[in-house]
Amino acid sequence: MFRELCPALHNKTYFNYGGQGPLPTPSLEAITASWQRIQELGPFTGDVWPFIASEVNSTRRQLAQWCGVPPHRLALTENVTSGCVLPLWGLPFAAGDRMLISDCEHPGVVAACVELARRENLAIDTLPVKQLRGDQASTDAGVLRGLEERLTPRTRLVVLSHLLWNTGQIMPIVGVAEHLQHHPQQPFLLVDAAQSFGQIPVAAAAAAADIYGFTGHKWACGPEGLGGVALSERVLEDAQPTVIGWRSLRDESKADLNSSDPFHHDSRRFEVATSCVPLMAGLRTSMALLEAEGSAEDRLASIQRLSGSLWRTLDQLKGVEPLLTVAPASGLVSFRLPGAAAASDLVKQLGNQGVWIRDLADPICLRACTHVSCTETEIKALGTAVGTISNQ
Amino acid sequence: MFRELCPALHNKTYFNYGGQGPLPTPSLEAITASWQRIQELGPFTGDVWPFIASEVNSTRRQLAQWCGVPPHRLALTENVTSGCVLPLWGLPFAAGDRMLISDCEHPGVVAACVELARRENLAIDTLPVKQLRGDQASTDAGVLRGLEERLTPRTRLVVLSHLLWNTGQIMPIVGVAEHLQHHPQQPFLLVDAAQSFGQIPVAAAAAAADIYGFTGHKWACGPEGLGGVALSERVLEDAQPTVIGWRSLRDESKADLNSSDPFHHDSRRFEVATSCVPLMAGLRTSMALLEAEGSAEDRLASIQRLSGSLWRTLDQLKGVEPLLTVAPASGLVSFRLPGAAAASDLVKQLGNQGVWIRDLADPICLRACTHVSCTETEIKALGTAVGTISNQ
Repeated sequence: MFRELCPALHNKTYFNYGGQGPLPTPSLEAITASWQRIQELGPFTGDVWPFIASEVNSTRRQLAQWCGVPPHRLALTENVTSGCVLPLWGLPFAAGDRMLISDCEHPGVVAACVELARRENLAIDTLPVKQLRGDQASTDAGVLRGLEERLTPRTRLVVLSHLLWNTGQIMPIVGVAEHLQHHPQQPFLLVDAAQSFGQIPVAAAAAAADIYGFTGHKWACGPEGLGGVALSERVLEDAQPTVIGWRSLRDESKADLNSSDPFHHDSRRFEVATSCVPLMAGLRTSMALLEAEGSAEDRLASIQRLSGSLWRTLDQLKGVEPLLTVAPASGLVSFRLPGAAAASDLVKQLGNQGVWIRDLADPICLRACTHVSCTETEIKALGTAVGTISNQ
Repeated sequence: MFRELCPALHNKTYFNYGGQGPLPTPSLEAITASWQRIQELGPFTGDVWPFIASEVNSTRRQLAQWCGVPPHRLALTENVTSGCVLPLWGLPFAAGDRMLISDCEHPGVVAACVELARRENLAIDTLPVKQLRGDQASTDAGVLRGLEERLTPRTRLVVLSHLLWNTGQIMPIVGVAEHLQHHPQQPFLLVDAAQSFGQIPVAAAAAAADIYGFTGHKWACGPEGLGGVALSERVLEDAQPTVIGWRSLRDESKADLNSSDPFHHDSRRFEVATSCVPLMAGLRTSMALLEAEGSAEDRLASIQRLSGSLWRTLDQLKGVEPLLTVAPASGLVSFRLPGAAAASDLVKQLGNQGVWIRDLADPICLRACTHVSCTETEIKALGTAVGTISNQ
């Protein structure tokens, strides 16, 4: 059903949900209808404010519910980066503090941490997780062992994705958060949820992290330009906003040079200024359509069934090496063709046949994603196309 | 013509262009068509990248052209705040430096400066411009005199709106920039262009400022959630990005813990991550529709003719006091009703009659805006409604 509602899936064989999910037609219609309603009532009138407040509140509520946090801990953002980085810049660091960053973090988040470290005189340590390629139990154990080895008395922040964008491994965020609570410094835990939100159940991890930043336009199949971040109570208390606009302020009507605390005390302190309200209706519609496909657990089971099928198909092809030694816990299936052309060329070759996957630089590999809208027919088509290439 | 294309103007008497402009139907259609095209080609495929690049490049080019700067000096942003504040946080301040901020800046920008001052140990001075209520020549002279009086040897930044959001006065940005060039510290000039972009010719001021941040959703009548900032060459050279994402990076494919300069050297260093690409087609369409109404100079002449008519109408009403002593240089007409109810109540009373203006807190007043789509019939309706209230 969901699949039929997505025009993007009608004319191609699509495996790039981790890059961007397809936008269902009802979601686009909801966006357009929201714009028309805003024009009818407003755009800047007393008549439109209740509508906008209702849009903002219901979106905040729905995202908070998926994240297992009360709405006052959920800030609306433009994308994953703003969700991760806006609260990050306001954390209470002292010169000499250390950040522990996994070796599978997205280049954007890493560059933000490097720049913050430069300005605040912080040091960066690396948490190795890239080498974990086995089942969930061994992955969990490996992450916690690595954490124990790399934490120092000065570690003030740990940065870890919930679902690694390259290997597809799921990180034991709740276990990591518990471990950090017993550390003398109680380091903040920043979680990049770009690949987890909309793909796997996120509530426990989002509620356990200090900063859990996600986007609506990947696995949740919402419009590009709208995401969110779940924040812990101590981030709301201890972190100052950095990019400050009228939405950060308790009283937006009047400038006050002498106020030391003009900001909202809830998640809104990390919201900035005018954003595109009509996108909210689109994201809520996409989330409702996904919910109609089953619970988060049921959807993950479907995704795993499909990614398992793809993993086995690829594993049986000569010249093709999946990165993981077992069927993936998520919908990300990364693999290599050691004897074949450069990964970017292989992506183009497959694209010429209407089959879309992507290549990654670290580790160098190809990545295909399966979502609930994926079909066995598509998996067979990808297997056949990869098989042809690997035999060339 | 423009007016007929805006559904928001069909069912109300609208004077809140300075809050948000109406979105023409062709702009909404362009947005929807862009979304459909992205779904047809992508959303994440080799086929869609040329389309997205073309959307980004043509939008950057068109905004840069209005701003009188080459495209490599124009960054795309979500709103005015992000345009002003993202580059601001990366300027090379030293403890003890001073900021000179006008007393008519928007509370969001002021709060951002206060927080930056707190963290970097900067001091804030105030440039008085609120009291200027006369013609352009006396305003220009007053601003430059105030500047001369308030600049100190440690002033490193001047913050001034191009068009004051409360009194509607136009600031002599080019003159201020020239004055600052001769100051020993050569302070950076940050200009909030929320009210100027799309209302008055901005090219000379945008090219002269260091940071000229604007939005597309007010006077340019584009969608909410898309704006831009024109940056000087020295900001591109001297300022580091703060909110960093994949769009800030020269090579977004691979994290590099050891690179001290991973950022684009052009305006993209201040762009962040995924934003809503379809909005770009909407803003370009709105800008083209405005251009069809006449050159920037011609449009300002129309706006002034309408605001002059409104100013005279109000000036002749007993109990009504326009803030300015002469007809406004812009489309903002602010006024007081000293004997009447609270400003917010007056706004509600007028709204109940389908006439929409807004109230401001500093100075306490009412504000009505005239754009090219405004009509003499609307101005008469506002005059009659205000006259009735002022006689109550």
